Amino acid sequence: MSIFLSLKSVQEAKEAIYSIAKAAEKETVALKNLNGRILAEDIISNENIPGFTRSTVDGYAVVSKDTVGAGESVPAMLDYTGRVEMGTLSDISIKTGQCAYVPTGGNVPNGADAVAMIEYCEQIEDDVLVYRPLATGENVVFADEDFAEGKKIIPAKTILRPQECGVLAALGIVEAEVFKKPLIGIISTGNELVEISKKPPFGKVRDVNTTLCSSFVENEGCIPKVYGIIPDEKNELYTAIKKAADECDAVLISGGSSKDARDNTSMIIESLGELLIHGISISPGKPTIIGTVGNKPVIGLPGHPSSAFVILSFLVSELLCAMQGIRKEYRTTIAQLTENIPSAEGREDYVRVVFKDGYAKPLYSKSGLLSTLADSKGIVKIPAGQEGLEAGEEVEVIFW
Amino acid sequence: MSIFLSLKSVQEAKEAIYSIAKAAEKETVALKNLNGRILAEDIISNENIPGFTRSTVDGYAVVSKDTVGAGESVPAMLDYTGRVEMGTLSDISIKTGQCAYVPTGGNVPNGADAVAMIEYCEQIEDDVLVYRPLATGENVVFADEDFAEGKKIIPAKTILRPQECGVLAALGIVEAEVFKKPLIGIISTGNELVEISKKPPFGKVRDVNTTLCSSFVENEGCIPKVYGIIPDEKNELYTAIKKAADECDAVLISGGSSKDARDNTSMIIESLGELLIHGISISPGKPTIIGTVGNKPVIGLPGHPSSAFVILSFLVSELLCAMQGIRKEYRTTIAQLTENIPSAEGREDYVRVVFKDGYAKPLYSKSGLLSTLADSKGIVKIPAGQEGLEAGEEVEVIFW
Repeated sequence: MSIFLSLKSVQEAKEAIYSIAKAAEKETVALKNLNGRILAEDIISNENIPGFTRSTVDGYAVVSKDTVGAGESVPAMLDYTGRVEMGTLSDISIKTGQCAYVPTGGNVPNGADAVAMIEYCEQIEDDVLVYRPLATGENVVFADEDFAEGKKIIPAKTILRPQECGVLAALGIVEAEVFKKPLIGIISTGNELVEISKKPPFGKVRDVNTTLCSSFVENEGCIPKVYGIIPDEKNELYTAIKKAADECDAVLISGGSSKDARDNTSMIIESLGELLIHGISISPGKPTIIGTVGNKPVIGLPGHPSSAFVILSFLVSELLCAMQGIRKEYRTTIAQLTENIPSAEGREDYVRVVFKDGYAKPLYSKSGLLSTLADSKGIVKIPAGQEGLEAGEEVEVIFW
Repeated sequence: MSIFLSLKSVQEAKEAIYSIAKAAEKETVALKNLNGRILAEDIISNENIPGFTRSTVDGYAVVSKDTVGAGESVPAMLDYTGRVEMGTLSDISIKTGQCAYVPTGGNVPNGADAVAMIEYCEQIEDDVLVYRPLATGENVVFADEDFAEGKKIIPAKTILRPQECGVLAALGIVEAEVFKKPLIGIISTGNELVEISKKPPFGKVRDVNTTLCSSFVENEGCIPKVYGIIPDEKNELYTAIKKAADECDAVLISGGSSKDARDNTSMIIESLGELLIHGISISPGKPTIIGTVGNKPVIGLPGHPSSAFVILSFLVSELLCAMQGIRKEYRTTIAQLTENIPSAEGREDYVRVVFKDGYAKPLYSKSGLLSTLADSKGIVKIPAGQEGLEAGEEVEVIFW
């Protein structure tokens, strides 16, 4: 093989990723385990919520037009007819000139169309003085106003937050169909690697990528399956990749970091399945491999953890999201650069930054350092068409 | 009790919260379970990493001064002395005028101080032509350059991301001391509540807050313990609050939504422990209660889920973080408001928004609607001293 990789653009790499990502199967999960899962079906309301006209305040249910012109000096005076108890069906009915006490969340009686907050009322025996005018519907939620029967409430492919789980509870939906968590095989390869519990002999280093990939995959809603350190030897690596692709929904192979080791990985993928991409115009992360084995996506990550992490964050994350039916969304903020960042044109560059009080400071260091991975709190992308970013520029910082 | 609460500022509420939050105990957790946990000890490097001089590229290890003046037309010509194998201790030693091949991650032999990338070299039998000049240390990581022995690598109170887990792996740290996940008791009270699996009879609604609080608490790194729906009846509520405070590290009681129910909760807290705050100048969320029972924090949340969620997000989150030894950090972005947001001066207002392409649109609706909880993707705070925000203003949007 040539020493020069035939580099593809990040756009081409993403297209390759989307072409090989298959959406996971679906499963039904109980509400209490739905937090963080990705909905595979639209949620439709089967009923009107709240289902009855409900007060949002403690106060007096009134006919709003009785309060026209009411003020501090000229309150509306209404007849008190009784009190609605919480959670019960009240037989009170309100006519013009009348009112009834309703607690927050209680049923607004028939005939009333607004509730005057208790703070703006005064009850003197059977008379209630209302010191403010009320609009129709004020402090009231109508029977179908929150969720109307038959309406789509949460669309499929929503990542369920506590908020959505609360809405499901309100609708009485005790389980929902979500995408299964993809099982992701994780292989570390390289003759220089030792188990993390060992003290590496001279010339060797601990296997960082198994831990890095497993934690990352978990954060993206998947389940890691660790295959450990596989020596950079054709037969062993061939067997491991075949087994992982058989058992998992996708496979991540990190390292070997040298050209020879990378060529090994790419040749094995080619012999077992299809090699789509070997080399991307991205920095760090150039020697990334994208392929399939048995129609399962297989990604070859650079051996160096900080390069691997850029590929995890910006390509593998897109794969894992696509396998769960969604598009990756990055959380970003805007910050002002404290220094110039030069970049090679034609290459998408990712520069680690620390940021505080609206300023982002690039973490310059040798690209081979792992320490900046933990030191950095975000990353700035320099698009392929740009020669760099200037100090003072406002840039988008991607949280990572 | 008066119909008017004696309102405290959000600042006073936070001070109360910090005064009652006790940091959780510590526990030792294995590396593979550390992702997302909060470190309770400083991580110090016990060794130099990488521990040997390491190449970050595939290429030829050289004495950098031999390449001074090298260029496309006048390459430096060096004697090839051999090849360093990956992961092994090489006995090659480089003198001026010599070079050796080193794979990425391999040991840079003694005497060499830089590595020329293979792409800029040409080997002709035992001669290597180097077409670019190299600086001292170029493409090399020195033995203690990534992590030096004795140096603090990750400070206590860091939330461990995949990046930090990777660094722990590199250092051979297979377990670490973290804060225990606090156990949070969750009580829903109110006579209007029914279990979520039931169809509510007229005038009743399903218990949304148990689900909302449980999921929220999980997202903040805690373990929810659900006590279910407790009727708004003094003895039952008293028994439930006492039991939950006995068994858990903190208790969240949501509802009842009416004044009477709130008064019940506050009186019980007062009789069992200490009532610090009843009523906060915040909207929504005014009738919030802060107290302690048996020195455990007890928070009374508003009954309405969307009000409760604001208090969870901006007060309870601070409590739960403080109980895990950290300060809550909010992720925010900047967006331009599409509409005016009026606000009452003297009150901290939280307005739900949707945002896209740098614009934030307030979700105006009745405050009593639950639907906007799921519809909104962020929230905008209007400080107590401000009368509102204007359309076109750039505002900070807090992701939620």
